[in-house]
Amino acid sequence: MKYKASSPGIAIDKVVTVQANSNIALVKYWGKRSIGEDCSDESLNLPANSSLSITFGDELSTVTSIVFSEKLNEDEFYLNDKKIDLDEKEIQERFIVLSKLRDIAGTKLRARVVSRNFVPTASGFGSSASGMAALTFAAAKALGLGIETSRLSEIARIGSGSACRSLFGGFVEWERGNKPDGRDSVAKQLYQETYWPELRLIVTALENPKKSISSRAGMRQTAKTSRLYKERIIGAEENIKVLKAALREKDFEKVGEITMQDTMMMHAVMLDTRPPIMYLNDVSRETINTIEELNRKEGRIVAAYTYDAGPNAVILTLDNDFDKVMETLRKINGISKLIVPGIGGGARVLDESQSIIDPNTLLPVSGE
Amino acid sequence: MKYKASSPGIAIDKVVTVQANSNIALVKYWGKRSIGEDCSDESLNLPANSSLSITFGDELSTVTSIVFSEKLNEDEFYLNDKKIDLDEKEIQERFIVLSKLRDIAGTKLRARVVSRNFVPTASGFGSSASGMAALTFAAAKALGLGIETSRLSEIARIGSGSACRSLFGGFVEWERGNKPDGRDSVAKQLYQETYWPELRLIVTALENPKKSISSRAGMRQTAKTSRLYKERIIGAEENIKVLKAALREKDFEKVGEITMQDTMMMHAVMLDTRPPIMYLNDVSRETINTIEELNRKEGRIVAAYTYDAGPNAVILTLDNDFDKVMETLRKINGISKLIVPGIGGGARVLDESQSIIDPNTLLPVSGE
Repeated sequence: MKYKASSPGIAIDKVVTVQANSNIALVKYWGKRSIGEDCSDESLNLPANSSLSITFGDELSTVTSIVFSEKLNEDEFYLNDKKIDLDEKEIQERFIVLSKLRDIAGTKLRARVVSRNFVPTASGFGSSASGMAALTFAAAKALGLGIETSRLSEIARIGSGSACRSLFGGFVEWERGNKPDGRDSVAKQLYQETYWPELRLIVTALENPKKSISSRAGMRQTAKTSRLYKERIIGAEENIKVLKAALREKDFEKVGEITMQDTMMMHAVMLDTRPPIMYLNDVSRETINTIEELNRKEGRIVAAYTYDAGPNAVILTLDNDFDKVMETLRKINGISKLIVPGIGGGARVLDESQSIIDPNTLLPVSGE
Repeated sequence: MKYKASSPGIAIDKVVTVQANSNIALVKYWGKRSIGEDCSDESLNLPANSSLSITFGDELSTVTSIVFSEKLNEDEFYLNDKKIDLDEKEIQERFIVLSKLRDIAGTKLRARVVSRNFVPTASGFGSSASGMAALTFAAAKALGLGIETSRLSEIARIGSGSACRSLFGGFVEWERGNKPDGRDSVAKQLYQETYWPELRLIVTALENPKKSISSRAGMRQTAKTSRLYKERIIGAEENIKVLKAALREKDFEKVGEITMQDTMMMHAVMLDTRPPIMYLNDVSRETINTIEELNRKEGRIVAAYTYDAGPNAVILTLDNDFDKVMETLRKINGISKLIVPGIGGGARVLDESQSIIDPNTLLPVSGE
């Protein structure tokens, strides 16, 4: 192994390995800000409203190893032991972060990126946010860029909106910001992952989840065609304020109420899109009705559901009610598994023993 | 048989039989106007927005026989050969129309009402609108009230909002109106049932339709809790204008586009309700996606779907595309039957041979 540095700090032929976790938004991001009539800055991924998320534990995460090398003529990407075509449009859009970071570092070195998603089968959560956060974090480290994480979130955001939140652990706000160049549309940590130990998360893994439609294309359609969309944006900003106050008080009922209201408001504008975008299925509906019925029977909010762009719920509850909620969820047909991730930390560097690029050959390490 | 008249025109011990058909709204009614802070006029069923519907043919209808008699101590109601408890709250609310009509006629005579719904099993359409239209029309006739149909729609509306539209055939608008007493919130015919012979309707009957939740309670919750509701009301009034222009031109693509947009906007505010109201199921979603895909492939709007408060679609198409659309719908799993109702007429008196009250005994005629 040799370390060369074409510019100060760049680790050439040295593998850097990081882990970043997925996150679940309680106030959702669905739709970009349009800047000017031509929406020319769409590629910046600037959101129409602020969002607020909880970072999952390592149960839902991505490990990424990266190496910059003069031996590479072009970038290479391996995901879950499969080589991915970087000419594919969606992948290309996401890999823009590599170019951005290279520009900052002042290098043209190509990279080999090897990623593995640790996402339980059919959980429906994972890849995109944790993957882009891991790629951004790994590349920045390998390029020796001493950028603070909040600034880095600006770059991760360009790859995938929700990825900017996954750079941080615990409770994270992605502020909408107002500047056209997106410098103030960054993520920041509100509370660490240890802030509210009584808060529990449950993910419902469905038996037959269908492949989801791309959220990037979907949110573009919503902004263009939904008549209710403007009201949703106003509502989301209101929800952020109320949710932040509720988190400060650790007021579970208020957190739950806002969480349920916000996710349904997002799915409502999806439905109001031409053509309609429908992620919730019969199992989702039964889960929602079951949780509402449980809360009604108990006379208080025992549990709250939230749905991203998919049919799998994340259920929030408190330690004291955890067993009761699990028991209730187990009765729902069509849920194959209940996953109980912790609340986790932000993106971090792993030690060499966890590398998935062989440090000597610089080739991907097989998952087997 | 003897005819006595306690006040001019009232047919005592004389059976009147009528038929009224169900209808499908292309611009939907979901939510009442709130008058004043206390919403004291809620019982008037005044809508927050105008709606526009097509009256089905006799395939989806109610036949009602009614007789006023001094021998009766209280009102009696038989529906599909079963005696119905008139103390039940929802039924009581609907039977207010009888009291209203009696007040107008200046009589206290009690009535026996016998109704039969002609609604294909699991079609999900029928009973409420056609039933209330038939009851109102039959009672008015039996009481000898020479009220014009538009005025009568004011009374039918009180029993069930959409019933006011079923008094008329063809294409019907229920104008929102502005007066607090609801005198201007009435239905009127835009075009007769023969206006657009090329227009075809297909109803999807599902295999396992679950019992729907009450729309009366649901729309109250929406008005109270949905943040998107106000925008929906504005959107619906805009849709009415565009739809009326499109109907005038018989512009099917425009009619279809507005129809699909409006139904999804209504279901969006249902979803945005606390707790959420969800009528669309996996079969509905597949039907929607199938129709959207068909339209996309054809490069024009070949068919349009619309959903009331249930999972069954009504599909609109034109004669030329009818076979193609039927073929496409037949491939959808979970649809048990496709019903093809015509576009029908308004409420009308049937002759004595079709009475379902025996003219001699004044007892219900059994369906067997």
